[in-house]
Amino acid sequence: MAEPATRGVFPDGLRVLNVGLAQFAEPPRAHGATVVEVDWRPPAGGDRDLGLALARLEDDPDDPVGARVREANATAVARILGARPRLVDVRPARQAIPGLDGRTILHAGPPITWPRMCGPMRGALVGAVLLEGWAPDPEAAAALAERGEVRVEPCHHRGAVGPMAGILSPSMPVAVVENAEGGNRAFATLNEGLGRVLRFGACDGEVLARLRWLADTLAPALRAALEVGGPIDLKVLIAQALQMGDECHNRNHAATSLFVRALAPRLIRAADGPTAAAVFDFLLGNNHFFLNLSMAACKATLDAAHGVEGATVVTAMARNGVEFGIRVSGTGEAWFTAPAPVVDGLYFPGYGPADANPDLGDSAITETAGIGGFAMAGAPAIVRFVGGTPADALACTREMYQITLARNAEYALPTLDFAGTPTAIDIRRVVDSGVAPVINTGIAHREPGVGQIGAGIVRAPLACFGAAFRELTRRLGVSL
Amino acid sequence: MAEPATRGVFPDGLRVLNVGLAQFAEPPRAHGATVVEVDWRPPAGGDRDLGLALARLEDDPDDPVGARVREANATAVARILGARPRLVDVRPARQAIPGLDGRTILHAGPPITWPRMCGPMRGALVGAVLLEGWAPDPEAAAALAERGEVRVEPCHHRGAVGPMAGILSPSMPVAVVENAEGGNRAFATLNEGLGRVLRFGACDGEVLARLRWLADTLAPALRAALEVGGPIDLKVLIAQALQMGDECHNRNHAATSLFVRALAPRLIRAADGPTAAAVFDFLLGNNHFFLNLSMAACKATLDAAHGVEGATVVTAMARNGVEFGIRVSGTGEAWFTAPAPVVDGLYFPGYGPADANPDLGDSAITETAGIGGFAMAGAPAIVRFVGGTPADALACTREMYQITLARNAEYALPTLDFAGTPTAIDIRRVVDSGVAPVINTGIAHREPGVGQIGAGIVRAPLACFGAAFRELTRRLGVSL
Repeated sequence: MAEPATRGVFPDGLRVLNVGLAQFAEPPRAHGATVVEVDWRPPAGGDRDLGLALARLEDDPDDPVGARVREANATAVARILGARPRLVDVRPARQAIPGLDGRTILHAGPPITWPRMCGPMRGALVGAVLLEGWAPDPEAAAALAERGEVRVEPCHHRGAVGPMAGILSPSMPVAVVENAEGGNRAFATLNEGLGRVLRFGACDGEVLARLRWLADTLAPALRAALEVGGPIDLKVLIAQALQMGDECHNRNHAATSLFVRALAPRLIRAADGPTAAAVFDFLLGNNHFFLNLSMAACKATLDAAHGVEGATVVTAMARNGVEFGIRVSGTGEAWFTAPAPVVDGLYFPGYGPADANPDLGDSAITETAGIGGFAMAGAPAIVRFVGGTPADALACTREMYQITLARNAEYALPTLDFAGTPTAIDIRRVVDSGVAPVINTGIAHREPGVGQIGAGIVRAPLACFGAAFRELTRRLGVSL
Repeated sequence: MAEPATRGVFPDGLRVLNVGLAQFAEPPRAHGATVVEVDWRPPAGGDRDLGLALARLEDDPDDPVGARVREANATAVARILGARPRLVDVRPARQAIPGLDGRTILHAGPPITWPRMCGPMRGALVGAVLLEGWAPDPEAAAALAERGEVRVEPCHHRGAVGPMAGILSPSMPVAVVENAEGGNRAFATLNEGLGRVLRFGACDGEVLARLRWLADTLAPALRAALEVGGPIDLKVLIAQALQMGDECHNRNHAATSLFVRALAPRLIRAADGPTAAAVFDFLLGNNHFFLNLSMAACKATLDAAHGVEGATVVTAMARNGVEFGIRVSGTGEAWFTAPAPVVDGLYFPGYGPADANPDLGDSAITETAGIGGFAMAGAPAIVRFVGGTPADALACTREMYQITLARNAEYALPTLDFAGTPTAIDIRRVVDSGVAPVINTGIAHREPGVGQIGAGIVRAPLACFGAAFRELTRRLGVSL
């Protein structure tokens, strides 16, 4: 039998470097060696093929594939940073969104159909069918959807984005946001406020009445105001709000106030007194109104960077409540999906994780554009809503620099000495580091009609990025 | 002759504690001793009498004088923290401010008369005389003041506060802020915006025309809006703005936006379309509009704590451009003054310290109430305006905890883990520590009519606090 290990096996003063599991360090340490532990994990989670492909796609100017990727990303990043989203119009979706006709309804996230839809999305879809008058009651509306007589498509397929269920039907008014730089347009519904609202799956009479008011009163007033006073520059408002404690996803208090201040002189010249009064009342009571404008601005920004062959930049992250999906600039219209995770957050009294629907909504377009969870360093007060501490909020932003290609100097964060927000998620860096994009988000009850039950933090599933990376390497002719 | 000092004079391992000048540490260190240096300064700057009086006025419950001070301060602090300033009215000063009649003009800071007034204050006073129609031209107006035919008094003597020159004449409209808790009222002029404005000493036709618009259009519209919709709670707006990057002295971007959002539904119901449009236009272009409301809110807050016998809490800090003065709760109407310091700051292009008027204005009422420079931790973006780094802004607030008695939980700063702002400056702590209150402020050109030439940081002169402390000990019968 071997002698039991004793001190003195190692020469005096031996120093050991451990890059493996922490346990590896114990035996030499027990025998008197000094052990330095390196926090290292193999790239791509140890996947050999992915690791080799990562090496091929590095920014190496001497490698033709690497050079192509580098150039493609430079184009994509320039388009994101150069985008100038402006609110130019508000009008019914059927007029604003090309091809949105007949019984078509758009939804959040990657493609999904009625049989697999989560509760809040079903509830919202039923509400939209009732709003459109395609069915007389909720049962009939559900049956219509069940029979496949309502065509459903992702918002993202039509240049649109919608928070939570993201349900958008032809008569609903949408904000039309134009990227003054690229000329492309994006669309989003108008924010209904908190409480029992369609986007969380509520579809009763009060919800539908509010949607009608948005369509009949708010939308025409906003449209007239924009006609009278010209477009409103959303990039400027977002940049200011990021210095005012908003991250423009879950906190839009400053941005909404700035929007009202910019709107007021326009609205007063365009609307009659009672209409303007009703609009100001509504906007005073809805601190989240700017969310949908922020989302449309981010969508217009990222669409400008989509479709650049070879670019590894993420152009959409979206959730339908069942699956989380991403799209990447260089991989065309494909979605790369994984099961939607559950959000880690703060719940309103009376609710808990068992009540929560998995992650839902197109609002992660904000993080994709480098704000939202990526800009939490500038919004320390948000931790009262989504959990954690102000230090955690700083750490979130700092961590995201690891997986992004640029800092957006126009979105400067005072708490980080005016560093720009981490912008342009690179799937290579996500795959390499295993650092998943952070998203802060609302939590919907999984049953339709209950509404929001909390807010918190969630990470994009790494599997989406691995799958996108494999597809990109295939397109680039790099064998795995 | 003595042997030259060599190593070995001290026994091995001797450790020395140095509480004196840094140089004292050198000889023992040179001889091999380990020296620990303590950053200590004698209390009260080494003034023996003040130091002994400080010891008497400590919060010692067994000492009758100490107990009396403690109780008085508890009362003063409770009144500051409990104040609920609300904007209740806007009307001409002669109607709002008791006794403001005849040819009376109020000014910023402690008392001063024409012969000693600084340039910007003279310019503003001339403008006010012209506005009131008491003289036909600037020369005649100056002559009137020179002959003493205009009665001048500090704003603070009438419950009012004014930024920079702080000139307030009977026909000017004032915001009327009522402390819903104490019932006391405070007043401030309406903010004119930046550029060539009366408060920086400009008094040409454009300046007077704007003042007339404030009186004839803006003020009646605001008054009507408040009549229709009720008072606006300024404490709530300040609390929100402090979480949105404002410190409500030199940065009021969020607070002004929140104010507009709260005003809009009221205004639209109270004013005709063209008036409302003109008001919204003006407010859109003036990010500093809330400053004067913030100042009146702070004045109403602090006046509630003034006049508590034995209280060592500062209730006003104000500058007339020649002298800096403070008032203390327990020392009645007395001012304790010292020469006004020059502001250390960032200058607009083309200007420098030689052009600067010494510190000017009643706006340091914000710091006195625990916001402004005391809340800079929540307003990191302000360093782009006043100089320094976001870390300096954090350090300013942290340092002010040393000289204040309370933290205002309703004014929570996210960047300091929601700690309340340092509130209720204690003259004992200022005298004891030598830490002077920090103020961030605008810088006026020393000639009338040029306007603002920069912004920066200034410290209240320690001499004011020493003098106030001596007077308080006299009143308390503590011999120095």
